[in-house]
Amino acid sequence: MRTSQGPEFIKGHGTQNDFVILPDPDGALELTEARVQALCDRQRGLGADGVLRVVRAGALPDAPADVPADVWFMDYRNADGSIAEMCGNGVRVFAHYLVDAGLATGGELPVGTRAGVRPVRICDDGQVTVDMGATKIFGESTTTASGRTFTGVAVDVGNPHLACVSDVELEGLDLKTRPPHDPDLFPNGTNVEFVRPLDSDHVQMRVYERGVGETRSCGTGTVAAAVAALRAAGADTGRRVVHIPGGTVEVEVTSTTATLTGPAVLVARGHLDPAWWQNA
Amino acid sequence: MRTSQGPEFIKGHGTQNDFVILPDPDGALELTEARVQALCDRQRGLGADGVLRVVRAGALPDAPADVPADVWFMDYRNADGSIAEMCGNGVRVFAHYLVDAGLATGGELPVGTRAGVRPVRICDDGQVTVDMGATKIFGESTTTASGRTFTGVAVDVGNPHLACVSDVELEGLDLKTRPPHDPDLFPNGTNVEFVRPLDSDHVQMRVYERGVGETRSCGTGTVAAAVAALRAAGADTGRRVVHIPGGTVEVEVTSTTATLTGPAVLVARGHLDPAWWQNA
Repeated sequence: MRTSQGPEFIKGHGTQNDFVILPDPDGALELTEARVQALCDRQRGLGADGVLRVVRAGALPDAPADVPADVWFMDYRNADGSIAEMCGNGVRVFAHYLVDAGLATGGELPVGTRAGVRPVRICDDGQVTVDMGATKIFGESTTTASGRTFTGVAVDVGNPHLACVSDVELEGLDLKTRPPHDPDLFPNGTNVEFVRPLDSDHVQMRVYERGVGETRSCGTGTVAAAVAALRAAGADTGRRVVHIPGGTVEVEVTSTTATLTGPAVLVARGHLDPAWWQNA
Repeated sequence: MRTSQGPEFIKGHGTQNDFVILPDPDGALELTEARVQALCDRQRGLGADGVLRVVRAGALPDAPADVPADVWFMDYRNADGSIAEMCGNGVRVFAHYLVDAGLATGGELPVGTRAGVRPVRICDDGQVTVDMGATKIFGESTTTASGRTFTGVAVDVGNPHLACVSDVELEGLDLKTRPPHDPDLFPNGTNVEFVRPLDSDHVQMRVYERGVGETRSCGTGTVAAAVAALRAAGADTGRRVVHIPGGTVEVEVTSTTATLTGPAVLVARGHLDPAWWQNA
């Protein structure tokens, strides 16, 4: 009978963008690329879109210098083991975990990321708001899906987006293959959002994530969608409720930044099997 | 900060056919179809091909009458919430869990299933052998994949299979769409195996599971593949090592039954979040 246990984990999601959280305050875990891949593998591991290691910024050698040492740092890894700077859905789940575990109280708290410290606010109703930083429109372009041409705006939300606002019904769109983009405007590829205004407050969105395919949610994509929908309505600032396949979020765009508000769900918590972790 | 916890769970897999195990000795859990679906959902739940509830046969009202009350019963549910009789990979993971949790000692032990009591043997090297019961060839038929026609035998392993032995290289086969079958021979559809003998002991296999699509492993499919490969070599009985995308298993076919031997891996254990479970 088993007596020992491996590292602690929590599984959670934000609008069905899902994560394995690994509490590691002192940065003691040997989190190799192979282990991230094994953790995120949906058959032979726990399965997730990414791993969020919870570590004090001071215990992480490569934390940005402007993140105070005692701030909780979200060491984000993509499912392929690579490092990512930020994740709008991940940071909500991360902050929810901190409060759930007693590592932070509710209200406003700073979360360290490779894109700097992000202020996060946890509301009593379980919704979490994260400051996503400034956005920038840097062009116009087109793409195609299901044989139709869509015109959109290029939006920089830390990563590139082509957000296409139209009245086309989104249910029937075929997003099995990558919608094409202008390589001059998007030299490193782009995420593509298809956005349909429902009324003056609500838009529906589907997204094709760069390097992934269609997903049920993309935090930066919802911000790009709101920016594009506001622009289509003749506004630079304002708010939009964005309905995505994985749920609903709210985006507020001001003259200096954009905030993303949405749910964060913790599904389960426990420990990895020590033999599994050793062999991963 | 959280203080309570929901039901206990274990995540595990057999050749990458993966399961959520729910220990529930007294049958107290309210395991609705919606909860099974939520547990198996790979984004909003833990994610699995199925749920294995661990319950004493005597505590399960619909357990078959021939299963003794004190036997551990594998209450198997498919990811869609429906009930299944048996699962060759699931029963290995189930037995491994029993020993890991101290509910059984190693060696030989009985596992209750809706197909009756199955003897399972746990070896010191971690491999688990399960008696899959008698198999039966009930016809010959053809299917197509990547524009080629394959001839196979219809094998009953509790569920129907069309196992096609050929020298065709399996890597390039397109199994994104369902290989067609003769509806007269398979009125309820069928699993389809493509089997390539590597030498006199080893075969390679890919499988399209009925109602699922291509999977990394299918326990009954490997048994059907061994039966077909033996027949292609002019034998009714014997053994074959079957290499599938999710790993390697060994099948032994005798005149009265077939046994399946393979690995069983426990990945993690813990508790579901009580709020998540309540809302699932």
